[in-house]
Amino acid sequence: MDAIEVIRAKRDRRELTTAQIDWVIDAYTRGEVADEQMSALAMAILLNGMDRREIADWTLAMIRSGERMDWSSLDRPTADKHSTGGVGDKITLPLAPLVAACGAYVPQLSGRGLGHTGGTLDKLESIPGWRASLSNAEMLDVLRTAGAVVCAAGSGLAPADKKLYALRDVTGTVESIPLIASSIMSKKIAEGTGSLVLDVKVGSGAFMKTVPDARELAETMVALGTDAGVRTVALLTAMDRPLGLAVGNALEVAESIEVLSGGGPADVVELTVRLAREMLEAAGITGAKDPAKALADGSAMDVWRRMISAQGGDPDAPLPRAAETMTVEAPGSGVLTRLDAYAVGLAAWRLGAGRARKEDPVSAGAGVVLHAKPGDEVRAGQPLMTLHADEAQRFERALEALEGAYEVGEAAEERLPLIIDRITP
Amino acid sequence: MDAIEVIRAKRDRRELTTAQIDWVIDAYTRGEVADEQMSALAMAILLNGMDRREIADWTLAMIRSGERMDWSSLDRPTADKHSTGGVGDKITLPLAPLVAACGAYVPQLSGRGLGHTGGTLDKLESIPGWRASLSNAEMLDVLRTAGAVVCAAGSGLAPADKKLYALRDVTGTVESIPLIASSIMSKKIAEGTGSLVLDVKVGSGAFMKTVPDARELAETMVALGTDAGVRTVALLTAMDRPLGLAVGNALEVAESIEVLSGGGPADVVELTVRLAREMLEAAGITGAKDPAKALADGSAMDVWRRMISAQGGDPDAPLPRAAETMTVEAPGSGVLTRLDAYAVGLAAWRLGAGRARKEDPVSAGAGVVLHAKPGDEVRAGQPLMTLHADEAQRFERALEALEGAYEVGEAAEERLPLIIDRITP
Repeated sequence: MDAIEVIRAKRDRRELTTAQIDWVIDAYTRGEVADEQMSALAMAILLNGMDRREIADWTLAMIRSGERMDWSSLDRPTADKHSTGGVGDKITLPLAPLVAACGAYVPQLSGRGLGHTGGTLDKLESIPGWRASLSNAEMLDVLRTAGAVVCAAGSGLAPADKKLYALRDVTGTVESIPLIASSIMSKKIAEGTGSLVLDVKVGSGAFMKTVPDARELAETMVALGTDAGVRTVALLTAMDRPLGLAVGNALEVAESIEVLSGGGPADVVELTVRLAREMLEAAGITGAKDPAKALADGSAMDVWRRMISAQGGDPDAPLPRAAETMTVEAPGSGVLTRLDAYAVGLAAWRLGAGRARKEDPVSAGAGVVLHAKPGDEVRAGQPLMTLHADEAQRFERALEALEGAYEVGEAAEERLPLIIDRITP
Repeated sequence: MDAIEVIRAKRDRRELTTAQIDWVIDAYTRGEVADEQMSALAMAILLNGMDRREIADWTLAMIRSGERMDWSSLDRPTADKHSTGGVGDKITLPLAPLVAACGAYVPQLSGRGLGHTGGTLDKLESIPGWRASLSNAEMLDVLRTAGAVVCAAGSGLAPADKKLYALRDVTGTVESIPLIASSIMSKKIAEGTGSLVLDVKVGSGAFMKTVPDARELAETMVALGTDAGVRTVALLTAMDRPLGLAVGNALEVAESIEVLSGGGPADVVELTVRLAREMLEAAGITGAKDPAKALADGSAMDVWRRMISAQGGDPDAPLPRAAETMTVEAPGSGVLTRLDAYAVGLAAWRLGAGRARKEDPVSAGAGVVLHAKPGDEVRAGQPLMTLHADEAQRFERALEALEGAYEVGEAAEERLPLIIDRITP
């Protein structure tokens, strides 16, 4: 087999055979197919597409490039969730302990943030002492002790995806639904879960800006999961405005703890409970405690405390706070008609909450706290949001990001419903 | 500027700006844009195209990546010709001295062969002592002495094209008319010629298999030359059957000498004379000696002898001959209905006339001599062609290449006319 032949086939709009896909992924992982060949193939895939069978083969080949985890030694079903990422999306933090409190094991392998959306591990690392990197044995230990574990995916899972993702990042070949879907699903399937709930975000703050694009991605991933024997369901959820009121690392941990304490913003609570119910159903757990009750009675909080402690964190330690704050005031009286998710994400990133390059550190305390959401009434001069940063000179560029991102008017603009649709196989 | 932005622009079917093109070619030449980024861009160009302005900018940027030759110190106009390559295409050999004999200077920078079509330099190197590599000063000397020079293009001409061509070769991005046209024309324009005649081959033995594809390439190159201030015209010529009767290195030199002696196969003579007239007209030389006359009266041969001698070759030395020959006989009596150019080229290549990798040597004596062309009457058992090779074991794979490539029947199949069309600005 020969890389040029495979590239030409996709370039000329032919279907790739299973043998071609298996060979090219394996040869690329081994370094026999060069980066410049794989990037040409990725561009041909982006422009000419892959069908359902090709995407399934591509995903399976990436899974086979590494190890596959196995939770069959556990005495209860596992449940897994993946979000495509958004501004203020801290749902994994309350969700993993909540679902564990209702009877499933929740092994949640997560990543770090790059660009304007934060990473779950970055958020949890703002808790003093907490460790993201665990061996497989430690992961099982935490899972048995706490019922849930959130940690970094080991380098042994789908190494072909890791290599390909880094290449796509520098070659303008990220925005391909077949490549995005196979990247996400190869890692999730390699994680060995029996069921999976996907939270596909839609709107300015999300990777998918429109409902049709998000629906296509969701349908592709649900098909992939189903074909691989994983019970998979997806929700399309709103990311035209930020989720919750806190955007940043420690700020989002604090908001998650509010939710686990039975409080927190209504949208975060609603989405957390809905995803928990979906995960329990997908995992085949019937007659479990209702997630809303597990938030109210403190049982989810108990799991959270055990999970944080088991990974070296101190659940009672005060969270880091940024040294400097600045208040943004409402420019007039009326209704907050719009608050753009992308702009808030970019502001938080510029305040220090996110990183530009993989090797950059993030600030634990930096970010944005909102005091109003679209649809809320505001009075002129009332605080609209508070910016947090370690250095005051970061405020200027954050304010630039927020220019034109919010508006006070007569009536709120049309917003996406929080939960837009549910995609099943 | 940033490579990913440029790749995304073309990926999303936007026009590249002049500034984007200038930057990406320069940064690629300097190594700042990586091979994997350029190959993704090349695939996006192959699939989404470039318009006339973009192709012109791309070509000019490649020219600016290196030196540009200057013939303004010469007292007569220069004329240049480029063929897209075909089986038995030795036209440069008689043509360069012929046009010089009629009054133009002909600086012909040529290449070596790769694959089933031979290279002009490989052919001339079968002449004992002849040197392909000349300094710019030596080139001017030969030109002043002989009126014509055929030599290797220096590495200083369009280095961006050299780097990009090698990349396209391994990434399935060769077959793009904008990239082919800009590659050819950047080298030709950098060579500093004032006029250019393009011989765009069409048929199984050529790169362009169909008349519409060849026409598009010809029109693109004529537009490019014209935009760059070079008087450019193109002929579309037949390459469904081999050109002339000899295919191979020394074999084609011998046939070229026949033409320069006033003989030779009719198609080679016709195309040589027609291209010579086009070159003289494009160079603006009026009232020159007619090329047909310069072949008949020996004046073109005189230039040939001076040109070969000036580059160290002995025009009187016997040409190398292959040690082994094998005759292929006509399978029946009737008319030779078909003789496929690609198959004959592949057979000559397998006999040793061509190379598989840039660093391979070629055999001077190997190749195929045809004893009949499509349309000729043949009798069963009559020699149809003679195979020449340095080692007898090469015959078997050459015969395999020829299987099904020729047929003897009642009436010849429809053939392309030798000169199909003429493309002007």
